[in-house]
Amino acid sequence: MHKRIKYGMVGGGQGAFIGAVHRIAARIDDQFELVAGALSSNAERAATSAAELGILPERAYSSFEDMAKMEAQRADGIEAVSIVTPNHMHFPVAKAFLEAGIHVICDKPLTSTLEDAIELKKIADASDAEFILTHNYSGYPMVRHAREMVQSGSIGKIRKVHVEYIQDWLSNAADDDNKQAAWRTDPARSGIGGAIGDIGTHAFQLAHFISGDPVKELAADLTSFVDGRKVDDDTHMLLRFESGAKGYLWASQVAPGNENSLKIRVYGEKGGLEWEQENPNILTVGMFGEPKHTITRGGNGAGDAANAVTRTPGGHPEGYLEGFATIYREAADIVREGRKPESLSPTVDEGLAGMRFIDAAVRSSKANAQWVSLDN
Amino acid sequence: MHKRIKYGMVGGGQGAFIGAVHRIAARIDDQFELVAGALSSNAERAATSAAELGILPERAYSSFEDMAKMEAQRADGIEAVSIVTPNHMHFPVAKAFLEAGIHVICDKPLTSTLEDAIELKKIADASDAEFILTHNYSGYPMVRHAREMVQSGSIGKIRKVHVEYIQDWLSNAADDDNKQAAWRTDPARSGIGGAIGDIGTHAFQLAHFISGDPVKELAADLTSFVDGRKVDDDTHMLLRFESGAKGYLWASQVAPGNENSLKIRVYGEKGGLEWEQENPNILTVGMFGEPKHTITRGGNGAGDAANAVTRTPGGHPEGYLEGFATIYREAADIVREGRKPESLSPTVDEGLAGMRFIDAAVRSSKANAQWVSLDN
Amino acid sequence: MHKRIKYGMVGGGQGAFIGAVHRIAARIDDQFELVAGALSSNAERAATSAAELGILPERAYSSFEDMAKMEAQRADGIEAVSIVTPNHMHFPVAKAFLEAGIHVICDKPLTSTLEDAIELKKIADASDAEFILTHNYSGYPMVRHAREMVQSGSIGKIRKVHVEYIQDWLSNAADDDNKQAAWRTDPARSGIGGAIGDIGTHAFQLAHFISGDPVKELAADLTSFVDGRKVDDDTHMLLRFESGAKGYLWASQVAPGNENSLKIRVYGEKGGLEWEQENPNILTVGMFGEPKHTITRGGNGAGDAANAVTRTPGGHPEGYLEGFATIYREAADIVREGRKPESLSPTVDEGLAGMRFIDAAVRSSKANAQWVSLDN
Amino acid sequence: MHKRIKYGMVGGGQGAFIGAVHRIAARIDDQFELVAGALSSNAERAATSAAELGILPERAYSSFEDMAKMEAQRADGIEAVSIVTPNHMHFPVAKAFLEAGIHVICDKPLTSTLEDAIELKKIADASDAEFILTHNYSGYPMVRHAREMVQSGSIGKIRKVHVEYIQDWLSNAADDDNKQAAWRTDPARSGIGGAIGDIGTHAFQLAHFISGDPVKELAADLTSFVDGRKVDDDTHMLLRFESGAKGYLWASQVAPGNENSLKIRVYGEKGGLEWEQENPNILTVGMFGEPKHTITRGGNGAGDAANAVTRTPGGHPEGYLEGFATIYREAADIVREGRKPESLSPTVDEGLAGMRFIDAAVRSSKANAQWVSLDN
Repeated sequence: MHKRIKYGMVGGGQGAFIGAVHRIAARIDDQFELVAGALSSNAERAATSAAELGILPERAYSSFEDMAKMEAQRADGIEAVSIVTPNHMHFPVAKAFLEAGIHVICDKPLTSTLEDAIELKKIADASDAEFILTHNYSGYPMVRHAREMVQSGSIGKIRKVHVEYIQDWLSNAADDDNKQAAWRTDPARSGIGGAIGDIGTHAFQLAHFISGDPVKELAADLTSFVDGRKVDDDTHMLLRFESGAKGYLWASQVAPGNENSLKIRVYGEKGGLEWEQENPNILTVGMFGEPKHTITRGGNGAGDAANAVTRTPGGHPEGYLEGFATIYREAADIVREGRKPESLSPTVDEGLAGMRFIDAAVRSSKANAQWVSLDN
Repeated sequence: MHKRIKYGMVGGGQGAFIGAVHRIAARIDDQFELVAGALSSNAERAATSAAELGILPERAYSSFEDMAKMEAQRADGIEAVSIVTPNHMHFPVAKAFLEAGIHVICDKPLTSTLEDAIELKKIADASDAEFILTHNYSGYPMVRHAREMVQSGSIGKIRKVHVEYIQDWLSNAADDDNKQAAWRTDPARSGIGGAIGDIGTHAFQLAHFISGDPVKELAADLTSFVDGRKVDDDTHMLLRFESGAKGYLWASQVAPGNENSLKIRVYGEKGGLEWEQENPNILTVGMFGEPKHTITRGGNGAGDAANAVTRTPGGHPEGYLEGFATIYREAADIVREGRKPESLSPTVDEGLAGMRFIDAAVRSSKANAQWVSLDN
Repeated sequence: MHKRIKYGMVGGGQGAFIGAVHRIAARIDDQFELVAGALSSNAERAATSAAELGILPERAYSSFEDMAKMEAQRADGIEAVSIVTPNHMHFPVAKAFLEAGIHVICDKPLTSTLEDAIELKKIADASDAEFILTHNYSGYPMVRHAREMVQSGSIGKIRKVHVEYIQDWLSNAADDDNKQAAWRTDPARSGIGGAIGDIGTHAFQLAHFISGDPVKELAADLTSFVDGRKVDDDTHMLLRFESGAKGYLWASQVAPGNENSLKIRVYGEKGGLEWEQENPNILTVGMFGEPKHTITRGGNGAGDAANAVTRTPGGHPEGYLEGFATIYREAADIVREGRKPESLSPTVDEGLAGMRFIDAAVRSSKANAQWVSLDN
Repeated sequence: MHKRIKYGMVGGGQGAFIGAVHRIAARIDDQFELVAGALSSNAERAATSAAELGILPERAYSSFEDMAKMEAQRADGIEAVSIVTPNHMHFPVAKAFLEAGIHVICDKPLTSTLEDAIELKKIADASDAEFILTHNYSGYPMVRHAREMVQSGSIGKIRKVHVEYIQDWLSNAADDDNKQAAWRTDPARSGIGGAIGDIGTHAFQLAHFISGDPVKELAADLTSFVDGRKVDDDTHMLLRFESGAKGYLWASQVAPGNENSLKIRVYGEKGGLEWEQENPNILTVGMFGEPKHTITRGGNGAGDAANAVTRTPGGHPEGYLEGFATIYREAADIVREGRKPESLSPTVDEGLAGMRFIDAAVRSSKANAQWVSLDN
């Protein structure tokens, strides 16, 4: 008999964007049931938001500490919690739940500081509870196919990785009342990275996820183009991978005409792969000396890795929410069976790597874009 | 406090495609809760399928008649049922539930025969329960925007509508064990229409939904290209609309290289609109004398009608399941508040129009594609 | 030693569009040298235009009859003439030059009336001079490749041909001073066909050129959407081919947002081909059961037929003028060596077929789109 | 009366690619007439090639020095010469003709060494003859439009320029008999730059041409991915412009699936521009807060700068050869009237800037991609 995993949410009350996304993602494959929440630090908003979501009043908390404590004590307490707060709250919330033995599904970036990230990694490693980071773009079927092609050697040894994630919504100084913009451009809440933390970490994770090749060093140039902005709104950098491959990563929130344009291209000795998040059901493959072809999600040429996370046939497009849902589906497997070697959901390790990436990029840029290692 | 609508499902057991789609669509906006089902006419498969979906054994029926009767008697009985059987079963199942006072959400086409459709229309009209037909493509935000632009007069009086829905999966004789192909090419289960019923009705509905202009007459040429096939696998036709506009409709399941290529173009005196289901987050607009532009779902230029059914910001693509979910969300509103003049979910009337369309096309084709009115 | 063919031009003086196109096309492969012209029926404009083109005054004629007579008598007289007048003048001009033994390269459609076309066919057949019709779109390399694929059986027996040629420039009543629009919408000069003659004939020729399958009968619906227009500005029709294949042809000059959108799709038992004139260096191929791929002009997968008419490597786009130039290059071969069985330049036969096509479509439309044979 | 400019060619004999391109480009607008050549350093090939092109034997030279001397003495001598040799010969040939008072139209890059470039700049400045460098990509109408939009302030102060020029033809070690590959990968003939010289200089010139903003410094990483290759086959770099804008430039000949993919994106405070050479008739414009639109060559929205170099109406695509022809057309104006302030054809200055760019990039890469100024 099908049993849903009972889960709670911290953050994600009225007016929040990503909380609603997580909830839909959790519902799509019917593996989760939302039963508790500390949806806002404002008690009234927390209660109203909970009621709207069908959470019973006694499980609508206004403090995540209370929630962690109380839920851990209940016989029917939550098995997992989703953390969808601004970045600076990821650490204390994740700590509270991990220490309460409750599995954590956390939005990215891992934390707002590298110190927090290092500490959280220790906490997660010491905990019996699992930690899953929602790098949702790695949940797209065609991203899985690209990864599979690289792993199988289809395109040969990788030479070049070009990844860009560009948007335009911060092209002007943000309105004061834009909640999304406000915290993302406030170092106290988002951390030292602006565009690099918000979207650059996605690009970084995707490049690694597909290529399987860790970045060894980077030379980054961060810019705040909008007057008075305290964090970068455009970052780009040269990359060098462990294998000897070279790369480029660009994260911008001031590129007019771009909504959420995450694109990755990977070129190897034998072939190249091109994928664009805004039209995600297609993977373009160019094998040297052959006509270019397109693998479609659910269609001809799609392999096991893609098909395993495909819900509809070819030509019936899946989108952002389905890619996100795949992370939740895999989180459900982890909650039920523990993390296995083949689990693809991002971990605290990838979260820490992302924080080291932000840190390295900021250090490099301060040193006039000199090469900086990601290891130290 | 948020309360979900309890619903049941007829059809959609293991191995079925569209049943799973309906269930995801019902979950996405969290308005429905599946509690009962007659998921298969095979008792064992019905029970197993129900267990997999978390339906309690006492509400896992092997007969839809029993289900309608029993659920109508329960205090906590279902308020609505989704019908996802092959076409020939739509009529008896819908009849049973409508007569039991349970709202019906039914896959298209309405029935397998025009006679059944006419009868079902009477039954639905006489019932207190509502009838919603899942012409899901009309749930896409950019389709809503196109409709809104036509209604507002932005593109002027319509001159031309070109709609095509082409696939390739029936290019060869189907394997005997392909369940999807088997019933769709069997007149006893699908009705007299093959491609025209399965996908042509979607194209027909979409043309009407966007243009607001009913087809007056058509001249159709139906073909069965694959040897031994008993229904059309390719149908195309000239259209004449009430307003004087002209049109073309093409439905094919033997067009290699096309997965689920539903495209519509509407040209008026002042401008033109172009939309493709496989890349659904974009609407291309060409106003005469101006550069062509693209309206994006959730992005610049998207209007109220599109925004009302949008879940994620621009650049975070929604897909087939979200469009389908919109029909379910609107069905939920209808279940709760009754159908209102502004309700956009397709009704039994549109279902009947679709059946008249199939009937007219078959008659026209038999008469060497002579013009046939849709009214008689 | 390379020798250019001396040629003259009738029509194409100042302000004309297509004359300049023919001249560039003739120059691109350096096979022709323009030495004479009757560029305008206005003597002064004829002289000025000739001077601008470097034609010596003694070979700048104001009458095409004089030009045919005089050039035929000169020892260094022209070997070929290009006819780029409005349609109604094609017949008398072509007659004059063919009867003078001078090869004719003529714009399409062949003539303005079917009677003229039948007569011209007789004259051309009786003449020692050759007749080449500039259906330039058949000169594109990827069109040649498509034809080659069909001939080789790659995509199997053809089932469906969908060709459309849509523009928007006549969406409104034309300004009186628009010379291009004026004659094209005047039956006395353009003939009984408007859009169908101007662009529909190109679509018709292309469908035949690629499929190799003659249209047997058609059912056409012609419309003049703009008030007061005397010829069709939108025509569409169902087609039936000799082989049993079915088709659709659409020619419109009132489709806002479309500049010169000629697209053809051909579906066979094994695969499909898709080509768009506005992005002509790509041919999309969908073989049933395989990922879709793209053949590029000059690139991987391009075959002998395409490569024979390719000037630049892949990725260095050729365009409209190069496609047109291919017709001229092949005309040069014909002028030098006579027409051979493998010559691909369109003949008077294809011109006559185009006129029968116009005639049939007009007759069909007058008879409420009943099926009309192209043979009678 | 129209008079063509008599010109000669050095290089471009049988088997050469770019010579034929220059000749077509020179013919398209009918401003030039080829009358002399030193088409090959091999005397026999020089003679045969000349005969094929209709060059009289007495003007078919086997030495460029002879040609410069003899043509300068003839009353009907050439007014201009096109240089289409491998890079290392640009300098001596250009020197000979400039010193003979004959205008030079030279392929890029300017020379094979920076020293030669500095010297050639002095020679060109001292000569009465003009020097035109064929950076043909700046001849595309939509590139002109992009430049015009930047100059007019439409997109605001530039923040970011992203230009890439990627190919795949050198992905493997080249065959020994591939003449194109052989000299391009031989430092003695191509200079110290491989991909950066062959195509990177085009990208660099285009970025400057459109943005109007000179690159101030760069940090480059050059790689030779193919074993044994003596020059870079992939180069990428961060850029900083004089204005404070940032940029990225990538030139690669080892990116499988890319034929000749030159793309540029320019983002300003108010809007962004995107252009791709392989589909060159479109310029995509994204103004912040508005729907994205497309300007088409010859179509709605195209401005004076684009229209001045447009030959065919919208939807009748122009390509690589027409863009190249625009450089020749403008060269003809310069030959006839002298270079004017508004002349857009690239000069020896841009050629020298390109050589400084190669030099700076190589120096930067050797210094582990540290920032290097272009001025010193």
